[in-house]
Amino acid sequence: MSEQNLQILLAERPEGWVETRHFRVQQAPLPRPADGEVLVRNLWLSLDPYMRGRMSDAKSYAEPVALGAVMIGGTAGEVVESRDPALRPGDKVVGMLGWQRYGCAPARALLKVDATMAPLQAYLGPLGMPGVTAWYGLKRICEARAGETVVVTAASGAVGSVVGQLAKAEGCRVIGVAGGPAKCAYVVDELGFDACVDYQAGKLGADLRAALGDGAHCLFENVGGEIFDRLLGLMRPFGRIALCGLISDYNATEPYAMRNVRAMLVQRLRMQGFIVSEHMELWPQALRELGALAAGGKLRWRESVADGLEQAPQAFIGMLRGENFGKQLVRVG
Amino acid sequence: MSEQNLQILLAERPEGWVETRHFRVQQAPLPRPADGEVLVRNLWLSLDPYMRGRMSDAKSYAEPVALGAVMIGGTAGEVVESRDPALRPGDKVVGMLGWQRYGCAPARALLKVDATMAPLQAYLGPLGMPGVTAWYGLKRICEARAGETVVVTAASGAVGSVVGQLAKAEGCRVIGVAGGPAKCAYVVDELGFDACVDYQAGKLGADLRAALGDGAHCLFENVGGEIFDRLLGLMRPFGRIALCGLISDYNATEPYAMRNVRAMLVQRLRMQGFIVSEHMELWPQALRELGALAAGGKLRWRESVADGLEQAPQAFIGMLRGENFGKQLVRVG
Repeated sequence: MSEQNLQILLAERPEGWVETRHFRVQQAPLPRPADGEVLVRNLWLSLDPYMRGRMSDAKSYAEPVALGAVMIGGTAGEVVESRDPALRPGDKVVGMLGWQRYGCAPARALLKVDATMAPLQAYLGPLGMPGVTAWYGLKRICEARAGETVVVTAASGAVGSVVGQLAKAEGCRVIGVAGGPAKCAYVVDELGFDACVDYQAGKLGADLRAALGDGAHCLFENVGGEIFDRLLGLMRPFGRIALCGLISDYNATEPYAMRNVRAMLVQRLRMQGFIVSEHMELWPQALRELGALAAGGKLRWRESVADGLEQAPQAFIGMLRGENFGKQLVRVG
Repeated sequence: MSEQNLQILLAERPEGWVETRHFRVQQAPLPRPADGEVLVRNLWLSLDPYMRGRMSDAKSYAEPVALGAVMIGGTAGEVVESRDPALRPGDKVVGMLGWQRYGCAPARALLKVDATMAPLQAYLGPLGMPGVTAWYGLKRICEARAGETVVVTAASGAVGSVVGQLAKAEGCRVIGVAGGPAKCAYVVDELGFDACVDYQAGKLGADLRAALGDGAHCLFENVGGEIFDRLLGLMRPFGRIALCGLISDYNATEPYAMRNVRAMLVQRLRMQGFIVSEHMELWPQALRELGALAAGGKLRWRESVADGLEQAPQAFIGMLRGENFGKQLVRVG
């Protein structure tokens, strides 16, 4: 075990697309846990679209990462030293220790997980924040019911793939939107969606109309931009929209100008934006249901793994461009 | 009493602004009530923005008015002949008899009102559809609570003026948006709003920011376009938006392109479009509360009256341009 820590810092705030120069890699002394804290060796780092927002200092729902600070991020790892009786060395935990090999945190800020029931990194994916995000948006905002049509964008991603499988389990007809034939084939053949529209195929409007038929009762929106705008125009009366992400906007210097907002009135739609971390009281229920689905073999997922913490910036940039396929992880190494 | 009926028909479907040539005035034989119906002489016709939508055959929440048919519209009048025991000649009733002097309808499709408690035409305004619209959007969608900031557009109009007064009665801080200094003065001085932004004053963004301060908890939206877009960007976290109308869009050939939809996510907003006629079960409760407010002298309103049914097209066009001041009515004559 190295006595040095490896960290990736925010070096510069991006405008538009993120580049590797916006990050800096550094060696730092190993942190020491204070009373009530533990030292964790991170084995997995989760890369998620929300991180792009934290790199900017524009008004948002959360404080930006400070310049020169370690990038924020969800992690799964192993306790190596504990100064709290609640955790022991060897325990597997998930937390928010950021883009670094070692981190200290109060024991109460970490969740101990059972890595024999599911692979450790699943607690960063379908059994973690992305899974609960999918559950909350579909169950609490979309309120999707059996027989309804649900459309979900970024359908092969960490959140979208869970949305679709939860909706299928509920008895819905599920249409995905994803980029490229490989992702679309995966969404239909492996995840069991009823259909998938490839937004790169060059005839988005016609393909969405054909796949949706009479329109969508529920939209789980992760992408924004033209796809979102067109889907707004394809909602059924009294449709519900869970607004979870606008990844296509995150790197744009100008926001996309939406032309179909009038559908909100004409079709009497309900739309709600949400951040799952503001609904922690529902995590236990969500994780129970997701765990049961996984145990029954009805929750599948896919991982894109970058090897080595130094690869995190490049993997993050690739994810923002849609180059990942499934949940983007970094094996910290 | 003339034995002829006077009617205004939809002659042509407008694209963009409505003009008088889109209507046709005609004389017609007096209709005869069938069994269970009554013949009503309309004394007042209500002019409302939703009528613009019914003139087009674009996809909407309701069937368009057929070419050559009498224009749709809410009316208040007096029963002249009854073939139903529930109503007698002389009874005052409101209904949807359209742009004509006489109309027949089943007695059960008419609401008998007490014209000694409030002027008959008030049942087309604050004690009718516009009042219930205000009540529903504010109470059931915005869920405005004491101490919160409510912003309402078209604040001097039939709906907006009731929204603001209901919100004041609830203990909210209320900001109106209206066109011109006269309407703004009325909104503040006579209706008791805390402030009013004149959207014609040439510095809309700065004026809205100054009036709203920390932002709005609730937005009751009647107008759409740039005003709506800017207000979206001035909502507080967890704000609620009742989307009631988009009058600025109704005559546009291209919908306004909204740039601030990302605020729905960043601020975790909830937006819902609605049509009050789909919530008839709440009318009795709404009308009780509005009636109590009026009886207590806390519900004021203003009327723009056009004299003579033949003036209805011109008055309707003026209303779409914002030239009316308060509830737009036609005294049928």
